[in-house]
Amino acid sequence: MSPPRLQVACAGLGRMGKRHALNFLEKVTRAELVAAFTPDDAEIAWAQVHLEPFGVKLYKDYDEMLLQQGLQAVVIATVTTVHAEQAIKAIQADKHVLCEKPLSTSESVSQSVVTAAAKKPHLKVMCGFSRRFDASYRDAMDKMESGMIGRPSIFRSQTCDVLDPSGFFVAYAQFSGGIFVDCSIHDIDLALWFFGQDSQVKSVVSSGITAVQPDLRAHNDRDNAVGIIEFYGGKIAYIFCSRMMAAGQEDSTEIIGTSGKLTVNTQPVSNLVNIYEPGGIRREIPQNYYGRFREAFEREAKEFTDCCLDDGRLPMKLSGAVQAVKIGCALQEAMISGKKIWFDTTGSRMERAQM
Amino acid sequence: MSPPRLQVACAGLGRMGKRHALNFLEKVTRAELVAAFTPDDAEIAWAQVHLEPFGVKLYKDYDEMLLQQGLQAVVIATVTTVHAEQAIKAIQADKHVLCEKPLSTSESVSQSVVTAAAKKPHLKVMCGFSRRFDASYRDAMDKMESGMIGRPSIFRSQTCDVLDPSGFFVAYAQFSGGIFVDCSIHDIDLALWFFGQDSQVKSVVSSGITAVQPDLRAHNDRDNAVGIIEFYGGKIAYIFCSRMMAAGQEDSTEIIGTSGKLTVNTQPVSNLVNIYEPGGIRREIPQNYYGRFREAFEREAKEFTDCCLDDGRLPMKLSGAVQAVKIGCALQEAMISGKKIWFDTTGSRMERAQM
Amino acid sequence: MSPPRLQVACAGLGRMGKRHALNFLEKVTRAELVAAFTPDDAEIAWAQVHLEPFGVKLYKDYDEMLLQQGLQAVVIATVTTVHAEQAIKAIQADKHVLCEKPLSTSESVSQSVVTAAAKKPHLKVMCGFSRRFDASYRDAMDKMESGMIGRPSIFRSQTCDVLDPSGFFVAYAQFSGGIFVDCSIHDIDLALWFFGQDSQVKSVVSSGITAVQPDLRAHNDRDNAVGIIEFYGGKIAYIFCSRMMAAGQEDSTEIIGTSGKLTVNTQPVSNLVNIYEPGGIRREIPQNYYGRFREAFEREAKEFTDCCLDDGRLPMKLSGAVQAVKIGCALQEAMISGKKIWFDTTGSRMERAQM
Amino acid sequence: MSPPRLQVACAGLGRMGKRHALNFLEKVTRAELVAAFTPDDAEIAWAQVHLEPFGVKLYKDYDEMLLQQGLQAVVIATVTTVHAEQAIKAIQADKHVLCEKPLSTSESVSQSVVTAAAKKPHLKVMCGFSRRFDASYRDAMDKMESGMIGRPSIFRSQTCDVLDPSGFFVAYAQFSGGIFVDCSIHDIDLALWFFGQDSQVKSVVSSGITAVQPDLRAHNDRDNAVGIIEFYGGKIAYIFCSRMMAAGQEDSTEIIGTSGKLTVNTQPVSNLVNIYEPGGIRREIPQNYYGRFREAFEREAKEFTDCCLDDGRLPMKLSGAVQAVKIGCALQEAMISGKKIWFDTTGSRMERAQM
Repeated sequence: MSPPRLQVACAGLGRMGKRHALNFLEKVTRAELVAAFTPDDAEIAWAQVHLEPFGVKLYKDYDEMLLQQGLQAVVIATVTTVHAEQAIKAIQADKHVLCEKPLSTSESVSQSVVTAAAKKPHLKVMCGFSRRFDASYRDAMDKMESGMIGRPSIFRSQTCDVLDPSGFFVAYAQFSGGIFVDCSIHDIDLALWFFGQDSQVKSVVSSGITAVQPDLRAHNDRDNAVGIIEFYGGKIAYIFCSRMMAAGQEDSTEIIGTSGKLTVNTQPVSNLVNIYEPGGIRREIPQNYYGRFREAFEREAKEFTDCCLDDGRLPMKLSGAVQAVKIGCALQEAMISGKKIWFDTTGSRMERAQM
Repeated sequence: MSPPRLQVACAGLGRMGKRHALNFLEKVTRAELVAAFTPDDAEIAWAQVHLEPFGVKLYKDYDEMLLQQGLQAVVIATVTTVHAEQAIKAIQADKHVLCEKPLSTSESVSQSVVTAAAKKPHLKVMCGFSRRFDASYRDAMDKMESGMIGRPSIFRSQTCDVLDPSGFFVAYAQFSGGIFVDCSIHDIDLALWFFGQDSQVKSVVSSGITAVQPDLRAHNDRDNAVGIIEFYGGKIAYIFCSRMMAAGQEDSTEIIGTSGKLTVNTQPVSNLVNIYEPGGIRREIPQNYYGRFREAFEREAKEFTDCCLDDGRLPMKLSGAVQAVKIGCALQEAMISGKKIWFDTTGSRMERAQM
Repeated sequence: MSPPRLQVACAGLGRMGKRHALNFLEKVTRAELVAAFTPDDAEIAWAQVHLEPFGVKLYKDYDEMLLQQGLQAVVIATVTTVHAEQAIKAIQADKHVLCEKPLSTSESVSQSVVTAAAKKPHLKVMCGFSRRFDASYRDAMDKMESGMIGRPSIFRSQTCDVLDPSGFFVAYAQFSGGIFVDCSIHDIDLALWFFGQDSQVKSVVSSGITAVQPDLRAHNDRDNAVGIIEFYGGKIAYIFCSRMMAAGQEDSTEIIGTSGKLTVNTQPVSNLVNIYEPGGIRREIPQNYYGRFREAFEREAKEFTDCCLDDGRLPMKLSGAVQAVKIGCALQEAMISGKKIWFDTTGSRMERAQM
Repeated sequence: MSPPRLQVACAGLGRMGKRHALNFLEKVTRAELVAAFTPDDAEIAWAQVHLEPFGVKLYKDYDEMLLQQGLQAVVIATVTTVHAEQAIKAIQADKHVLCEKPLSTSESVSQSVVTAAAKKPHLKVMCGFSRRFDASYRDAMDKMESGMIGRPSIFRSQTCDVLDPSGFFVAYAQFSGGIFVDCSIHDIDLALWFFGQDSQVKSVVSSGITAVQPDLRAHNDRDNAVGIIEFYGGKIAYIFCSRMMAAGQEDSTEIIGTSGKLTVNTQPVSNLVNIYEPGGIRREIPQNYYGRFREAFEREAKEFTDCCLDDGRLPMKLSGAVQAVKIGCALQEAMISGKKIWFDTTGSRMERAQM
């Protein structure tokens, strides 16, 4: 009698995987979490307590999970290195896919997911850029589209994590693709969203330092970096990424148009509380991206579910995720080489000997 | 196989009733909306579209609804004048009750609900003061309880609605109990929460004006009013209520302690967007209390459900709702009479001839 | 050859006296500080270092100072108890007068200064309500006068000092007139300014506590108090005064009109710096009223000088200062007696036996 | 009897010249404006009204003015193209010099002023970077020096003017040196201040667009630009300059350290007023740099005067002004050429063929 619910599996039960699994289990009334995969024993143990009792079947083999009867969609939240492979397998098994960003740390591998998806146009395949589901970013987009700021021309955005002195990010740098691919991918995706998905990158250049984690250099990574992305047509995005914030997560964006400006989170807050105490007035801010974007992740899960069930239109094209990886990789390369990297209007790398 | 869900009915499908019904239908995974009551044809028509298709049985007779097989809980969102009667009937029918505020515009009628509930201690009976479920108020309470501001001593709070030029509030004033009972009841409840539920009121005094709606005077009401509530033990709450705001809903609170202060929403915002335009920098704010407290209402529904299913402890005592009505009525009376009203330490009215 | 400068004397060299003296010495190019009076040896010693070398003649006798050749104006910054007497003497000696607030802690004594000044209409006699010279308050007034908020109807204002654990305020309470006369006098003056100087008070009521300084009770004073002032014509001011702030000076004001609202300093700041640190984002705020109003005091000195030299019009009438004292005294009395105090439309106290 | 005052002349009476002249005339009690030069008839006419009556002698010949008996100091506020020549002449005539920024739009010409000044070490020669005198920037510097943010590592700063649709900036671009030299020079100077005056630039790169003033391209200028400045030692400044702001002047700065962050004016305000109106809450912001930095200019005039009279130490070295011009010119060149420009550790340009 009750309406059908989307049968969802979750691949990966690490930090984000747990959150995705619980969101689909508890927050998405139109979805049913029916399966979860992880090769990790500790994660299996966690799932035996938090998922299995609610009817979620657990797998240590991804391919086996895909065979589960009735499964309709897979959320991929494993390590980035297997995103593309698992996404392609799920597509081939005729499942809708919500894949954590990035598709891959390589442009060509990312493109292979798009190619696979193109062969199954009835499937919903989305790369989860959570900020697209954030109420404030959406409000900014609505305002921009209403003409409130004229033509968007300069875009500033930053993804800045709180300092984690544990050394986690040094280990993580081995497979993260680097700070521009891991952090700034969000800002790049936002730039493509606000400037238009068909914006063509013209050049990138960047610089980075290791202010607190010199060991990152062993992995060709940095802990603070800035970059400039020029687009054809007279648009510029400039970005900052950091893993060194003291106060908390500081992800903020400015969209500067010819007749106005919109900002998102340039005055971060956790909530509506202010603390008056000796030393002044203080407000707390979220300590990580999930504190900032929790609601966006929930909305992402709901809207993905709605799209799958109702054959709706996804809020963004999968090909944009390839473009974002391409720009992120170029920024990372420019940071290490010191070179400015140029693209022609078809998107191909261009050597400018004279530069 | 899936866990049991609380079988809930919603009485009243007006502005708040619709919201409660949809919250239980769509947002509370552990509850199932199974019935709804309204005597109003237009509301029935709405429910035939939005509720009935999802298995919700509709009633035009409240008593009949209470007889529905398996019903476990009732949400009462009808007009205030029938809150108490319907709550008592539900209690007598052995249903858990979540009743919109206020229980009644009369202290004695409100008390009759408490008396009825006291006879059925296994039932969860709650008056829905939504701000108790707001993340920012809860954060402020946690911080106060951690000792961050010393002993709370002065409490300022306001409930200020946006100007509604339609004349709605003039008609509404006939049965709302007046601005202190309708609006300030939230601030009074917050004062009792932050000062402690056993705080004893010592005196109230207030003043009001009709700045934009002179017709309110016909119903002994005002559109702007301020009041002072003294509590025994050296604590003072002062409040402001208004139906004349230009920018939007402005519900804000300050808790001033002997060594610090906490504020909630003294800088209202809708979201994290700022608009830079000729004339300066602007931020939008919620246009009504639901825009401000939507999440709190959802959390209220969820926590009420959890309490019912798990025999948990409600976050507040029902008797506090009587105390709030008592203080609200006294403020309303003081505003009309011009008198200061005194209470002795047992809570009884005291005549101070010399005052 | 250079234009004539106003010859000014400063009476009193305590905390504010020193500031006034230095302002006239260093900041007012059209004035010349030529004399200073104080009965206090320590203050004389200070003046021998900071004033005498720049041509300022020092006096231990006020009357003698008034005889100094060429003296044109006197700034009175002595203890409140001698303000009126010294002002009257200066007026009688044909000097312009800038008197620190309040004229006196008594309405009738304050009135005697107005009466004396009325006999010398060519003199500029002003009570120094510094906030009238603050750029933000002036901007708010300009905006209100331009019609930006419709008809001002509700006025909220507070003067809140940082906690001074030294016990200074207990001793000071003996002659300050109490917290409403000492602190709130500014808020009352602002209410009279924004509501119109001819506003007639209808009633006052107030409540106070001693949250941190119980010894204030010996002087019939309190450390935190709130009050309501009703004016004839449907206007209400409500105020809060405190000597218990943790973060710093918090003097803020809201002017609520029928179609908009203006606020002044509801988000206090010292400057434009924000500090991001573990625990969140912090801004410092001024630690005392001089930190908040330093520029206003300088502007007050300059404008008073200009008025004297150019026979200009003072920005406010002296009689307003009497009205402010009257309301402040009534609030103080109401706080101690618990009574609500009524006034008829001529400003006379009214007994309302029935109240 | 009164203490000696610095005899000051003002060269140039354009927009800034007028302000400097009036500041020295009215705000600096220790200075006396005795002369002013301008070749412009309209400016002479203005000066005949506003300066001459107060004893200021007017000149249409700069050299003649330098000969005026008793003259001790010259403020140079003429067009940038003559700054250096006039500064050198004044130095050679043994006058102290306060020169508006920049010294020149050329590094070598700027250096010639430093060289001239070095021969007269008894003279105070300062390039007026007004932000060094701003209370908020000074507070940020004090906090940084106290160790509050650890080691400064990333510096973000922007100088953003309100849109001027008159076409003024197109004409102005002919001699301004371009947007990086005209606007960003302040941000570059701040970077040198916060990173340390001896910071060595390693590379610069930049990009610009003409979003609203395409005619700027004729002068090799842009209306919006971003740049990255790398310094040896692992420090990066990134900057944004614009002439297209809708809301007003937006000059803001972030200093990001290894353990904290300081921001200056990231939430611009004109004053402490907020406006609540339909559409939300609005605050006004300064409309031009003088609205933002008026007090800083006054403090600059005062401190320069004090230094001259008391043989004090100037708050910054003149050589820094050359460094700022050098970096500004490099950014401008990089913007036009698209090239990244490298410097070796001695400050010389470096060709990196491979780049």
